Amino acid sequence: MSIVAVGSVAFDSILTPSGRATDILGGSCTYFSLAASYFTEVRIVAVVGEDFTAEQEDIFWKRKIDTRGIEHEKGKTFRWGGQYLENLNEAKTDFTELNVFENFQPHIPNEYMDSKFLFLGNIHPALQAMVRQEMNGVQFTGGDTMNFWINGTRPQLIQTLKVIDVLLINDTEAKMLASERNLPRAAHKVLAMGPKALVIKHGEYGATIFFREGAFGIGKHPFRAPALPIEEVKDPTGAGDSFAGGFMGYLASQEEINREVLKRALFYGGVMGSFAVERFGTERLQNLTREEIDGRFEVFRELTHLE
Amino acid sequence: MSIVAVGSVAFDSILTPSGRATDILGGSCTYFSLAASYFTEVRIVAVVGEDFTAEQEDIFWKRKIDTRGIEHEKGKTFRWGGQYLENLNEAKTDFTELNVFENFQPHIPNEYMDSKFLFLGNIHPALQAMVRQEMNGVQFTGGDTMNFWINGTRPQLIQTLKVIDVLLINDTEAKMLASERNLPRAAHKVLAMGPKALVIKHGEYGATIFFREGAFGIGKHPFRAPALPIEEVKDPTGAGDSFAGGFMGYLASQEEINREVLKRALFYGGVMGSFAVERFGTERLQNLTREEIDGRFEVFRELTHLE
Repeated sequence: MSIVAVGSVAFDSILTPSGRATDILGGSCTYFSLAASYFTEVRIVAVVGEDFTAEQEDIFWKRKIDTRGIEHEKGKTFRWGGQYLENLNEAKTDFTELNVFENFQPHIPNEYMDSKFLFLGNIHPALQAMVRQEMNGVQFTGGDTMNFWINGTRPQLIQTLKVIDVLLINDTEAKMLASERNLPRAAHKVLAMGPKALVIKHGEYGATIFFREGAFGIGKHPFRAPALPIEEVKDPTGAGDSFAGGFMGYLASQEEINREVLKRALFYGGVMGSFAVERFGTERLQNLTREEIDGRFEVFRELTHLE
Repeated sequence: MSIVAVGSVAFDSILTPSGRATDILGGSCTYFSLAASYFTEVRIVAVVGEDFTAEQEDIFWKRKIDTRGIEHEKGKTFRWGGQYLENLNEAKTDFTELNVFENFQPHIPNEYMDSKFLFLGNIHPALQAMVRQEMNGVQFTGGDTMNFWINGTRPQLIQTLKVIDVLLINDTEAKMLASERNLPRAAHKVLAMGPKALVIKHGEYGATIFFREGAFGIGKHPFRAPALPIEEVKDPTGAGDSFAGGFMGYLASQEEINREVLKRALFYGGVMGSFAVERFGTERLQNLTREEIDGRFEVFRELTHLE
């Protein structure tokens, strides 16, 4: 089934121990949609400026991503610059130029309205809630957020969490959202705010999915997927968005959402994140095959599988 | 097969968010031997002072741990005080009184010399090497170390690593030992120093075992075991030593050491660590049953197992 993804499209300038890239295509919606496109039909909602040309749009089209929801505004596209010289696990932001993204008002094309899956990328929680309300026919909604919204717009975020089925955030964000330093206790507090499931991404240590008791009829025992030990991380940008794309894309491709499917989705999330960091920007995500993806899925499985 | 463990026996004073305990039995050799005792016969080598009485020795005897290698010296037993109020993952040391441990010279009783497994706890690497040389009939040696020896006695440690089959350390120690911030690259550098396998403990994220190519005839692909998300960690002291005890104890109980056995050992390590932190000190490790242990092993398996 098709999935609608709302988020940012950006031009990134990135410095890592492996090198430098300037003004390359990035943004949460870009990484998410490329990763998800290997599993299902993806339709995106974003805003770009006049510097976004056919060259960039072609990257989406090659992956058959529906770009009718991209609004083209006067001005420049969102730009972000960051570096990972000291710590590959955390970007140090050099600059943020919101540009046309500053006044982003997501508009869902009519042609998208029959989608049953929705992913609310890392934007203002009030906008997330608005999109969710507009797409009232969706059956399953995933969402992302970040420290900025957790601290700055907590009341709106709390409202949005009530209409999200799965929230995907990292350890720090989960602890901040729950005001709780113990991870499983933080998870249960977040689940009490609304989501049926919570995916906490641990970076190089993988991810855990926690379930609200009774959700999906599958009990509340958590499940963990590993991350691949990677010797050369070229560029960590977009790893979390690619994780979300693999996770949500796989879910949208399945007939039914049950515990086993959610477990496999968590593995596919890790798989797509592991590909993303192998090259700068979205390069690796543009040219994968489903065979490569499933091959790596088996490597992930072997990494923790007991006979 | 029996295993000989060399290390510290101590009295610990511990403060955690869950409470306080004063002068309770601790030490790396104590946690290790109690954890390993559920899998195999354990023989310990340590030193204690006059304050170590039948009351403490009884804790070992109840688990059928051979204490003939404990030397009783004039003076006081090693004492350590620490707290975990700010960070449950890292102890803040309040005091260290080495006492009789300061001049610890491990003597292996003749009755121990037929053991085929040896665990060299966290003591001076020159003492580790001496014990290993004395017990030249052992078939498999595990070892631990810490920042203090990595920084302060690196040349001796490098020598000791040549006679250790499996080294068990944490992320920080592995990166420090290898002078390398990327974990898998650090692992390969440590393996090049001698060990056939390297277990890196990630605390609440589990552990990874890396193999030297060709070691155990099993290829070099790493393997990861999860840690249980635990809502209430009463006292983290001894979690790593209990992990090592479960890992080594299980290995010593097996006919053959192959990849599958090492994978299961990594899971049993996590299981014993998870029990240790449920109560203060060694309390939980004193009264387990093999059924409880294997029950939790299944929980760990389910935590990452895909159908």
